[in-house]
This record gives sequence, C-alpha cells and structure tokens, in this order.
Amino acid sequence: MQAVKVFNNNAVSVVMPDGREAILVGNGLGFGRRPGDVIDKNRVSKVYYVQNELQTKFLKMLDNVTPQVMQAAERISLAAEEQGILLSSKSTISLVDHISFALERVEKGTFLPNLMLSETRMLYPKEYAVGQRALELVRQFCGVQLPEDEAGYIALHLVAGAADGALAYDTVKFVKAVKEIICDTYHCTFEEESLETTRLTVHLKFLAARILRHTPWQDAGLESMYTVLLQRDSRNEVCLQRINAYLRQEFDYELDHQEQVYLLIHLTKIVR
Amino acid sequence: MQAVKVFNNNAVSVVMPDGREAILVGNGLGFGRRPGDVIDKNRVSKVYYVQNELQTKFLKMLDNVTPQVMQAAERISLAAEEQGILLSSKSTISLVDHISFALERVEKGTFLPNLMLSETRMLYPKEYAVGQRALELVRQFCGVQLPEDEAGYIALHLVAGAADGALAYDTVKFVKAVKEIICDTYHCTFEEESLETTRLTVHLKFLAARILRHTPWQDAGLESMYTVLLQRDSRNEVCLQRINAYLRQEFDYELDHQEQVYLLIHLTKIVR
Repeated sequence: MQAVKVFNNNAVSVVMPDGREAILVGNGLGFGRRPGDVIDKNRVSKVYYVQNELQTKFLKMLDNVTPQVMQAAERISLAAEEQGILLSSKSTISLVDHISFALERVEKGTFLPNLMLSETRMLYPKEYAVGQRALELVRQFCGVQLPEDEAGYIALHLVAGAADGALAYDTVKFVKAVKEIICDTYHCTFEEESLETTRLTVHLKFLAARILRHTPWQDAGLESMYTVLLQRDSRNEVCLQRINAYLRQEFDYELDHQEQVYLLIHLTKIVR
Repeated sequence: MQAVKVFNNNAVSVVMPDGREAILVGNGLGFGRRPGDVIDKNRVSKVYYVQNELQTKFLKMLDNVTPQVMQAAERISLAAEEQGILLSSKSTISLVDHISFALERVEKGTFLPNLMLSETRMLYPKEYAVGQRALELVRQFCGVQLPEDEAGYIALHLVAGAADGALAYDTVKFVKAVKEIICDTYHCTFEEESLETTRLTVHLKFLAARILRHTPWQDAGLESMYTVLLQRDSRNEVCLQRINAYLRQEFDYELDHQEQVYLLIHLTKIVR
C-alpha cells in the first residue's frame, strides 16, 4: 500500500488493495514517508475505514455477532450452493441473523415452534436438507444444538433467498389450472381469503408435490366414499374427468379413487 | 467529541458518542488542539472507523444496498413492532436482504412463487398483515410494486425473527395432544416423514387455528359421509369422543359432524 497523505509519524492515509480509503495507525509507520511511498504492513496496529452513515448503522446492528456464527453461516451458504441453491451474498448476513437469534432463543430457554415445519419438509425437500445440515454446522462451530424447528426456518430462508423457483413454478401452474377447471365446471368463484379455499389450495399443492416427484400413492380403500360423493352432484364426475384429462396431458398422471375422494371432500365446502 | 490524539492540523483521533474509536479528518480541525480539547464538528469532512476483519466482510456483502431499501426495512421493523412483533436489531438487516433480492427479481423479470402463501396468511395473520404493509412501504420508498408472494416471504421472515410464539405454541400443544389420543385409541404410531402424517398434521393445525381464533364453521351437509365413516371402524367413535372431551376441557370447543368427517378421512390413511 502506498501513502496518500502522511499525517505524522504514526498515521498515514492510504488506498487499500480493494480500493477503499483507510487511515493506518502504527508506531513510526509514517516516519520519513511521503505521498506515494510504500507503507510497511508490519507496523500497522489499527486500520480505520471511511464509513458512511448507512455502513455505521449496519455495523451497529451486527455489533455482537461472533466470528463462529459468521463461519457457520458461510458454510451453510456453501452447502446450499452444493445443492444448486444460488443465494445472493447478502443472504449470508440474513443467515447470520437467523442463527444468532436461534442461539439467543436456546440460551433464554424460549422455544419458537415452526407451524410450517411439515409443509416445508414436503414442499421444499432440497432446502430442508440444507436446513438440517445447518443444524450440524451450527453445532460444530458454535457448540449448540438447535431444535429441528430451526432447520425449517433456515430452509424457508433459503427458499426466500433463491434466485428462481422452477419446482414451485410448476406447482403454482398446476394449482391454477385445476382451480380453473373447478370454477368452470361448477360455475363458482373462489373467495381467496376463506379457510375453505386455503384448504383446497393446500390440498392441491400436496397433490402437485406428489405428481411432480412421481411418488406413488397407495389406495386405502375409500370406495364406499367414492360412490357416495359422486352421487351427491352430477357435476362431480364431469369435473374429475376434466382434471384427469389435464393431468394426463401435462403430467402423465391420473388420479385414483382415493385421491378423487380427497378432492371431492374439499370441493363440498366450496361448491354449493 | 474530545480529541484523543492530534495527528496534525487535519487529523485527530477521537472516541465517538457511541463509544467507538474514530479518526476525524477535515481542514484545520486539529489546528492548535491537544488531547482532551473539543473538536469542531462542522470541520469534519470524513470519519474513519476502526474496523475488524468481520466488519469488513459484512460491509462488503452490503456494498450495494441503497439507503432507500434501508429506510423501507426500518419502517417495516417499526410496523412489526406496532403489531407487537418484537424483532432483534439484526432482523432489519435480514429484511434488507429480503427486499433487495425481491427488487432484483422484479428487475430481472423472474418470479419466485411462494408455495406457502395461503398457509402463511392463515396461520400467521398478524405477520402477514405486516408483510402487506411492507409491500406498500417498498413501493413508497423504492418505487417498485412487489408481488403478493413477497408479502408472504416477509411475513415468514418476521415469524422466524420473533422472540416468542405464543399462538404457535398453543397450536403445537393442540396437535400433539390430538395425535396422542389417536395413537392411543388405534394403537398406531406415526411415521413422521410420511405424506399422510404431514397431511393430518396440516389438517390439525388448521383446525387449531380455527378453534384458537373462535372462527365459526358452517355445516356443508356431509351427514351421509359421517355415517359411512363411523361404521368403517368401531374405534372411530371412541376416538372422536376422546378428542371432543379434550377440546371441551382445554378450548371449550366441540367438533361438528363436518369436522369429524374431515378428521376421519385423514385418519383412514394412517390407521390400518
């Protein structure tokens, strides 16, 4: 590093290798030096960087983050990358936040249940696996075992920080198409905010998750239900046929009776 | 601020009001000053802070965050606080990450669907409301309208960053108790990782959400189903009675036939 300004024997301003302005302080490092002279790194005892208000704010927020938490977060980002989950560099800081808060909760003995743990595991298996790896890494670097619920929170964090959502996109397309078939067949509309619509949507997403990952489904013998439900409304059969036609064409899949029973049960709340 | 060391006429080291060491640079601000003398703030042109390696790393990650995003994040934290959601100071940085990534996605035209949007709205209504307010604030400060899915991500972020989870805790207690009754009645165990267990768990959580918030449920006439299902297995009636007894005692609530049908349908997949 070359001196830009020599303040006195012990203080010199420089431009650091990464281009940032700094003032170096150290015994005698400015002695006899002029602008342009090389500064002896070994004499530097403190580095002061120019910092604007925003940066000052940031650092204040991160005041008590330990290097261990930072290391764990960096390793988790790496583990995510190995799974093909690309995150922004900022996401590591977000992980730091997650982890240090989770550690704080363990320390205080408060438990924050994750209500969407099971859905997260089901709908985002790749991110969830990284979440579990994260617990290992935190134990390794910080010496604390976080509860499984935190694996879910970390997974959600990875989901939110992802650059794209291919699997998610297919699921959304699937749900939208099936809902359109339903509306069209029964001439109904969905109240988006209602509990019933949410339940149907959740159901369709789980169905999509199974279809998109080709998980087989075993019939649990709901045949008697099937007949009862089909007879309740003549449009039911039409609707199921249309949905099956769509699934065959788009996903090479056909609903079995079991699955049709589930769907019709959910529909009874919406179709009047 | 009082001078600690005077390097020369233009550079003085001080301890800032927040206790951090800094070097102030400015024309003549050190002129005639000695340690302990007050430094004229108006002469300061640059502030250099001592910065360790970790802090340098942080700032690099946050390099291109704009003050607008920071302002929006601070206002969102405030909005969360007004709703009684207490966050750590670090959580604001996490919000900054969320928002700047969401803005990036809009800019690139990529869409990241949120598969848990409807569940988030249902299970965490308070956090979701703040998520929606967040979209307004981002529009106001950054001039960009983010999609509704991002409100869900921000809500999840608030959930993960919360200091406690009282409502969530009740829900978990509820789900656990009902599952224990089921296991005990049918002498069965749950495979925690299976799709069926997840679906039952999701169902129970939604039931809990309704019970805990005392949302009424309208009967959609599934009486025929009810009879068929009760007759399938003699233990069904026992199980429903035990669950109702628990709900009466703990939550002053009783399942109606509609709700019992739902529950039994989910149980058929688990109980053999």
